[in-house]
Amino acid sequence: MDPDAVAKAFVEHYYSTFDANRAGLANLYQEGSMLTFEGQKIQGSQSIVAKLTSLPFQQCKHNITTVDCQPSGSGGMLVFVSGNLQLAGEQHALKFSQMFHLMPTPQGSFYVLNDIFRLNYA
Amino acid sequence: MDPDAVAKAFVEHYYSTFDANRAGLANLYQEGSMLTFEGQKIQGSQSIVAKLTSLPFQQCKHNITTVDCQPSGSGGMLVFVSGNLQLAGEQHALKFSQMFHLMPTPQGSFYVLNDIFRLNYA
Repeated sequence: MDPDAVAKAFVEHYYSTFDANRAGLANLYQEGSMLTFEGQKIQGSQSIVAKLTSLPFQQCKHNITTVDCQPSGSGGMLVFVSGNLQLAGEQHALKFSQMFHLMPTPQGSFYVLNDIFRLNYA
Repeated sequence: MDPDAVAKAFVEHYYSTFDANRAGLANLYQEGSMLTFEGQKIQGSQSIVAKLTSLPFQQCKHNITTVDCQPSGSGGMLVFVSGNLQLAGEQHALKFSQMFHLMPTPQGSFYVLNDIFRLNYA
């Protein structure tokens, strides 16, 4: 299993789900999952998805510029993303960067243990 | 030990060392450490410091905008940084984002297991 291919597949799945149906992200997180969104700390799948679905925009499109990944030393994988976030009705896209720490599940898949998101206000 | 305080202290130490004497970063990395620098993968303290000291600028100054941290679930800590990089002689600063995965040492300190750096070309 090529880690770069896994990272790329995860990133495509994550952002296409985010852009189409944010509530569908719930099964990527677990109870111990953490999200830091623009400095706000949120824990647990339910609270994280409540935060993401309550963001003050209806439609958006993430365009990915870079995806980097490294093994995290505990069977997990770190995925570091940069890109642009286009909000419906806004002229300019917002730059963002985001990191995920993916951990393996017993089913051979991954869940998001750590998620840190920042806008760069370019 | 407050994780946010540790992360902030690490970030201040890392970038002040980078800006004053890049070779001094060697003792923050170990043999298993990984750096992905603008997509280029480098492993091991010696190779990482060789890369950082060979970057094509002499003087620089990192100005930190945000520092976020989370426990990584394996005794380690994830630190996510955004900021500006001012190169000597350049008019405009470059935006960057960078993540570190810090792991504890037997001496009660931390070393950098994972390091991913990206310029955002703002």
